[in-house]
Amino acid sequence: MVPLALIQNLSEQTPSKILFLVLDGLGGMPHPEVGKSELEMARIPNLDRFAGLSICGATDPIAPGITPGSGPSHLALFGYNPIKYDIGRGVLSALGIDFPIESNDVCFRANFATVDKRGDISDRRAGRLATEVNRELCALLRHIHLPEVEVFVETESGHRALVVFRGEGLSDYVTDTDPQRAGVPPLAAEPTHEDAAPMAQIVNGFLSEAALVLQGQDPANALLLRGAAGLPAIPTMPQIYKLTPGAIATYPMYRGLAKLVGMEVLETGDTIWDEFETLQQDWDDYDFFYFHVKATDTAGEDGDFNKKVQVLEEIDSLIPALLRLQPDVFVITGDHSSPSALSGHSWHPVPFALYSNTCISDSVSEFTERTLVQGSLGRFPAQDAMQLAMGHAQKLAKYGA
Amino acid sequence: MVPLALIQNLSEQTPSKILFLVLDGLGGMPHPEVGKSELEMARIPNLDRFAGLSICGATDPIAPGITPGSGPSHLALFGYNPIKYDIGRGVLSALGIDFPIESNDVCFRANFATVDKRGDISDRRAGRLATEVNRELCALLRHIHLPEVEVFVETESGHRALVVFRGEGLSDYVTDTDPQRAGVPPLAAEPTHEDAAPMAQIVNGFLSEAALVLQGQDPANALLLRGAAGLPAIPTMPQIYKLTPGAIATYPMYRGLAKLVGMEVLETGDTIWDEFETLQQDWDDYDFFYFHVKATDTAGEDGDFNKKVQVLEEIDSLIPALLRLQPDVFVITGDHSSPSALSGHSWHPVPFALYSNTCISDSVSEFTERTLVQGSLGRFPAQDAMQLAMGHAQKLAKYGA
Repeated sequence: MVPLALIQNLSEQTPSKILFLVLDGLGGMPHPEVGKSELEMARIPNLDRFAGLSICGATDPIAPGITPGSGPSHLALFGYNPIKYDIGRGVLSALGIDFPIESNDVCFRANFATVDKRGDISDRRAGRLATEVNRELCALLRHIHLPEVEVFVETESGHRALVVFRGEGLSDYVTDTDPQRAGVPPLAAEPTHEDAAPMAQIVNGFLSEAALVLQGQDPANALLLRGAAGLPAIPTMPQIYKLTPGAIATYPMYRGLAKLVGMEVLETGDTIWDEFETLQQDWDDYDFFYFHVKATDTAGEDGDFNKKVQVLEEIDSLIPALLRLQPDVFVITGDHSSPSALSGHSWHPVPFALYSNTCISDSVSEFTERTLVQGSLGRFPAQDAMQLAMGHAQKLAKYGA
Repeated sequence: MVPLALIQNLSEQTPSKILFLVLDGLGGMPHPEVGKSELEMARIPNLDRFAGLSICGATDPIAPGITPGSGPSHLALFGYNPIKYDIGRGVLSALGIDFPIESNDVCFRANFATVDKRGDISDRRAGRLATEVNRELCALLRHIHLPEVEVFVETESGHRALVVFRGEGLSDYVTDTDPQRAGVPPLAAEPTHEDAAPMAQIVNGFLSEAALVLQGQDPANALLLRGAAGLPAIPTMPQIYKLTPGAIATYPMYRGLAKLVGMEVLETGDTIWDEFETLQQDWDDYDFFYFHVKATDTAGEDGDFNKKVQVLEEIDSLIPALLRLQPDVFVITGDHSSPSALSGHSWHPVPFALYSNTCISDSVSEFTERTLVQGSLGRFPAQDAMQLAMGHAQKLAKYGA
């Protein structure tokens, strides 16, 4: 893989525009009853035509066989090494609820849990608490005040919450207090670096107070913390690619990720047509657009084959409008696969097609898992997608004389 | 390539079973007279059908253009970086004759050689000595006794032998005494690390004694040592993949390699049907099987095109029985290519097919060098095969949230 520093050296600002249409969880699998995947079943003439004009392939977001979470799979798509640039669990939780993280914050993913009389954990998820109860408990926990450190306690959903520490001299080099199993007591946070001893004390001090606040609550009488993380030191897309990137996404986590890599996050509505409206309106102001569609993944994760087919057909109807904007480079792909047959993310390679008037089109004429991978790109690392787009947009200078 | 530490973090023990059928030296080349490779000539309807159900490709064991030995090519197939995990020549010799290496042993490959009156080497292989004479000489050399160090001298075949030093404070940081050419005297062993000075003395002391023992022998009047090596520090497959792996192989070197990576080596007979019997019998006790077939390589190395075709047809008849065991993931590949047209190992990519009910099958319908590489895996590093199998067996947790 080429180092980002080299890409940064070669990148040039030009008027050409790149559009990444990222269909979350795009890749599917044959449905056992019909023997066809969602893409093979869907009527998607515009996507098929698009494949015919494009260079086609299938990406490995992380590496063959590895199922990615949305964080690393998006980083790969934006050209970052998803193993080197590891976004901590706490930060993903914060991004997921649009929490405005500041540069020295330390974020934790928190679970409301149940402990028995002896202090052992009997349920790590407090009976999968109702979100409403979670909100009430977070409000109580906000009364905790620590000397010289601000603490934010925010509801995610169900038993899931976010705890953020803000102040001077904090550190994310502390261990989880969640032992990840029942029958044992919660752990104390321990420093994993000598400088983090004060931070471990702060965390344990907060948890002692929280135990008092939650005492007598049923079932959520304990709080478990894991995934301590601050904002990663990550070069931004404007720095690397000299782009002015805009992000259009309906879900907080994707907006948060986009912000993390230096995109401007554009206000938009809930449907793909709302998102298109935003794209059209802001078309002149950016030279890179990340256009995220969540519905493909939701249908896949729900195990709803027919719904995923329907969502794909709806997206198909959007393609002509996107083409009319005449992007110089137009990529249609996903961040990972989410076959409805598996009801979740999977390791399968992700359909990919790149259209540009500088591409030598393949002889692929259908937009499916089986056909796209036969294109000239074959199976390739997602991390290459961004530099391929930059090349076709003629935004990369010659390497060497 | 993904670090093994990451794979180790993601690996989970599950009931699913993986079968690797490794046909040694599988890949061939068109025979100049018929214009077809061994696989193209063979009638292998079961393998063809298998390809049709699988994801297909061709692996590079080390890297494009590089011809591998069996040691590194097998390591790659088991997911190890074959350049990082270098198994020394001495250890390969020991594995090859089933010598029970202990953790601090230092092994050397030895050549019986001929030196002239001036002490210069006239033949590095002593006229390719008969194995029987080799055995007699090894018996003589076993009379040498060194203070505080045990020495084992074992016949391989022809002029080839194994010398193993066992004791405290030994080191493999010593140079070869085999100058790799005639017309010069044997070299003295030199330490390549300051701690290895005593070891060099031990080796040179042994060789002085050996020279006395072999004095007057004709033609084998000298011993040359090379490839000093101890057991490599290699994480085992149970450690990395949390598998309980069983190995079925008829040749000592493959059994030795399997043991080195933490497999349990199962007792078996000489034919592929004996091996199948073992597989069937031990099916319930392991979740990964390495099933090695040597005959393909032997035919290739012998330059016997027709024999290799015949062996492939015999293996084909085994496939239905293997499928009836219903492995969750079934890989058919080789460790390297051994075209009979070249009478030896080659750098050609190795036919590969992976079947699982989680795979999106390719449109490949013949099991040959030319057709498999057109599958969705294309040409890829053998080192990815294991994690691909782990993914399809649903034994890898999601990476990142």
